Amino acid sequence: MTDTLARFVARTQWADVPADVRHEAKRALVNYFAVALAGAHDPTIDKAVKVYGGFAAREEATLVGRCERNDMLNAAALNAMSANVFDFDDTHLPTIIHPGAPVAAPLFALAQTIALSGEALLLAFVLGVEAACRIGNAVSPEHYQRGWHITSTCGVFGAAAAAARAIALNARETAWALGNASAQTGGLVETLGTMSKSIGVGNAARNGLLAALLAQEGFSGPLAPLEGERGFLRCAAARPDFDAITEGLGRDWALRANTYKPYPCGVVLNPVIDACLALHGASPKANLDAVETIELRGHPLLRERTDRPDVQSGRASQVSAQHAVAVALARGRAGLAEFSDAAVAEPALRAIGRRLRFIDEPAWSVESAEVTLVLRSGERISQYVQAARGSLAAPLDDAALEAKLRELAGGHGAFGGTRDGARIDVEALLSQLWALDSAPDAAAVMQLARAA
Amino acid sequence: MTDTLARFVARTQWADVPADVRHEAKRALVNYFAVALAGAHDPTIDKAVKVYGGFAAREEATLVGRCERNDMLNAAALNAMSANVFDFDDTHLPTIIHPGAPVAAPLFALAQTIALSGEALLLAFVLGVEAACRIGNAVSPEHYQRGWHITSTCGVFGAAAAAARAIALNARETAWALGNASAQTGGLVETLGTMSKSIGVGNAARNGLLAALLAQEGFSGPLAPLEGERGFLRCAAARPDFDAITEGLGRDWALRANTYKPYPCGVVLNPVIDACLALHGASPKANLDAVETIELRGHPLLRERTDRPDVQSGRASQVSAQHAVAVALARGRAGLAEFSDAAVAEPALRAIGRRLRFIDEPAWSVESAEVTLVLRSGERISQYVQAARGSLAAPLDDAALEAKLRELAGGHGAFGGTRDGARIDVEALLSQLWALDSAPDAAAVMQLARAA
Repeated sequence: MTDTLARFVARTQWADVPADVRHEAKRALVNYFAVALAGAHDPTIDKAVKVYGGFAAREEATLVGRCERNDMLNAAALNAMSANVFDFDDTHLPTIIHPGAPVAAPLFALAQTIALSGEALLLAFVLGVEAACRIGNAVSPEHYQRGWHITSTCGVFGAAAAAARAIALNARETAWALGNASAQTGGLVETLGTMSKSIGVGNAARNGLLAALLAQEGFSGPLAPLEGERGFLRCAAARPDFDAITEGLGRDWALRANTYKPYPCGVVLNPVIDACLALHGASPKANLDAVETIELRGHPLLRERTDRPDVQSGRASQVSAQHAVAVALARGRAGLAEFSDAAVAEPALRAIGRRLRFIDEPAWSVESAEVTLVLRSGERISQYVQAARGSLAAPLDDAALEAKLRELAGGHGAFGGTRDGARIDVEALLSQLWALDSAPDAAAVMQLARAA
Repeated sequence: MTDTLARFVARTQWADVPADVRHEAKRALVNYFAVALAGAHDPTIDKAVKVYGGFAAREEATLVGRCERNDMLNAAALNAMSANVFDFDDTHLPTIIHPGAPVAAPLFALAQTIALSGEALLLAFVLGVEAACRIGNAVSPEHYQRGWHITSTCGVFGAAAAAARAIALNARETAWALGNASAQTGGLVETLGTMSKSIGVGNAARNGLLAALLAQEGFSGPLAPLEGERGFLRCAAARPDFDAITEGLGRDWALRANTYKPYPCGVVLNPVIDACLALHGASPKANLDAVETIELRGHPLLRERTDRPDVQSGRASQVSAQHAVAVALARGRAGLAEFSDAAVAEPALRAIGRRLRFIDEPAWSVESAEVTLVLRSGERISQYVQAARGSLAAPLDDAALEAKLRELAGGHGAFGGTRDGARIDVEALLSQLWALDSAPDAAAVMQLARAA
């Protein structure tokens, strides 16, 4: 099984990848750079850059959105951390893996140290995402429920597979890289919401790359790191789905189930925000003072996860329905600035949030919600959303992903932290990413992603 | 619970550590340097040194038994790998954790970059071993049985606790260090016997140190990385023993259950080798040709783990009763040279091994065995061993540990690999280690442990 996966990673050609999957890879990279630029100056990243900066062997690789550089292992870690720190990155729906951060970060760091074409990087990215998500499928949902942070634990396999392909390891060496990765799977759900989480995601990127570099030197691993009696799959889940590793390999592609968040919030809030933005758009000058109650209908999970009326920080506001509803109704926007410490501190928004009433609708999908403004006059204005933006049924289109990158590269420091005057040429970056498959040198992208 | 452990690590003084535990710490370090010197030129380490050497930020720290240097993070990893690569290191019996490698390696690397007295290093070592083994106790035996390599998964907590204490973190920062470690627990039993295993052990040392350095910068972690709903203990075992973390803290010490191997073999072979060495000693010139059959009585586990008549390599011979019996009877020795590729290739030893017959004694302890030489004359010569050397009932004494270091520092390259002319002043190293608690600078030891 490991063998089959390793052969697939070592031998699949760009011509074997369907056009829609090729394009999805570019979309995932647009999203990756958007969220990495957004996260690059969070205090978590500032502190990590300082410590990792003390262990830079060379300044060979760019830190996205920053002026510092580091060696490729540390850059892989730090860029993956930046891309994931706000949980605003991509989501492979069947597993809740965020594959972009751990897989893209090592590839672009590697591209700054070896000759790697855009096509070769994209192919390695597709295959790395495939490896991470297939392994994730095999151990889901038990693995995450048990407390393992699946983006980290499976991400390291994706990083190893991607790096193995990028440095042209053969099938046997690729299997060793997967074995070397298997010794490095870690990351706990308990760390979510704390800085510690970022180490797990950074390690996935860094250690996957290291796993491939070691395999290149003949540093060999077990024959069956995945399916073995004490291998990853049985360790990670009581009843792993072994078939998920190889079934439909080369026909079913994980990137087709990858989604991108429109808002920097818990994903259950997506339809709520959609509805509020529509209500704002319908009557942007509506006097919210006239609203007596805001009814929010949705799956009970929405209430359980987001009934948080008194959040104190921008970070906490990302999972507060009260804040999300208030800010989206009042501003007609739901970007980083709307989930900042400054936004949370606005008394007017708090007052609106206090009028929220949850109504459970157990039969509804979590991708649906309805927001109803109940005015003092008795009038009711409702907006129902069946499939939230960013879901597979209503994916962000290319223009929306471009807009996300434009906003997040804007340098407004909405989530706190310090910006060091990053000036990103967003349009050039977007052009390079959409044309990456014809770029002779993938590293050129990193020149555009650094802080000038 | 994490809090209690963190306070214990941050606040315990050397005066609080009983004399026998203090001495056991020194014994563990003598064993650590013995096995690190032995492993330093295994091909696994050669390859890792090459790859990690490409990512050295500075040459600030010694690689034990080698002439290369590296930065403290990489040196911590590489030295832990060297100490564990042959599985000849110490064993905490209740958990089968090998605590010396992941806990000592980061401390000595750190000592080469900051001012750290011998007493401070010893105290940090005692506390790090305590943290690793207590966490291991809480998840044993299920955790290892499920397939997690407990030396790696729990070792990272020990390394973090030890490093946190060595850099004088307060209790809150120490808890963050444990949280940062919790995001980095990994290592699979499936990788044992392959090079990949060493990455897990190296990561435990390196990442535990990194966890503490990050905490020092205010890189904060979850409140309950151990006991939390999605924390390490529940992730690692279905029914963790929460009490094991704090019960008897400061009264019961993990180092008291730490043991040291007399032979570079699977631990179940210890009583067998004891018996064979005694038989050889009784009649060293006995003609083994006169032996028709060799009966080996022991717990069935002995047969299940070591009935391997046709091993092809020195590494494999470490778990072969046929080889162990033959070489110990023939040579009266059971050191690294006796479990080398060269020894395995000797036809005379194979011929002796083929005469072995296992006899199960289900009621016996695994620390017991009996070897009976059945001569062609019909005469039977038996040797029974009740408690093998190296067990808690018959621990290696200080002189035996010294002898182990003398032999392993000898540079005979018995397990293959290349020696770079290491000349270790073993007697000076031993003197320094036994007097470590009065050394003003713990790093002086590392000057003696490097290859001249």
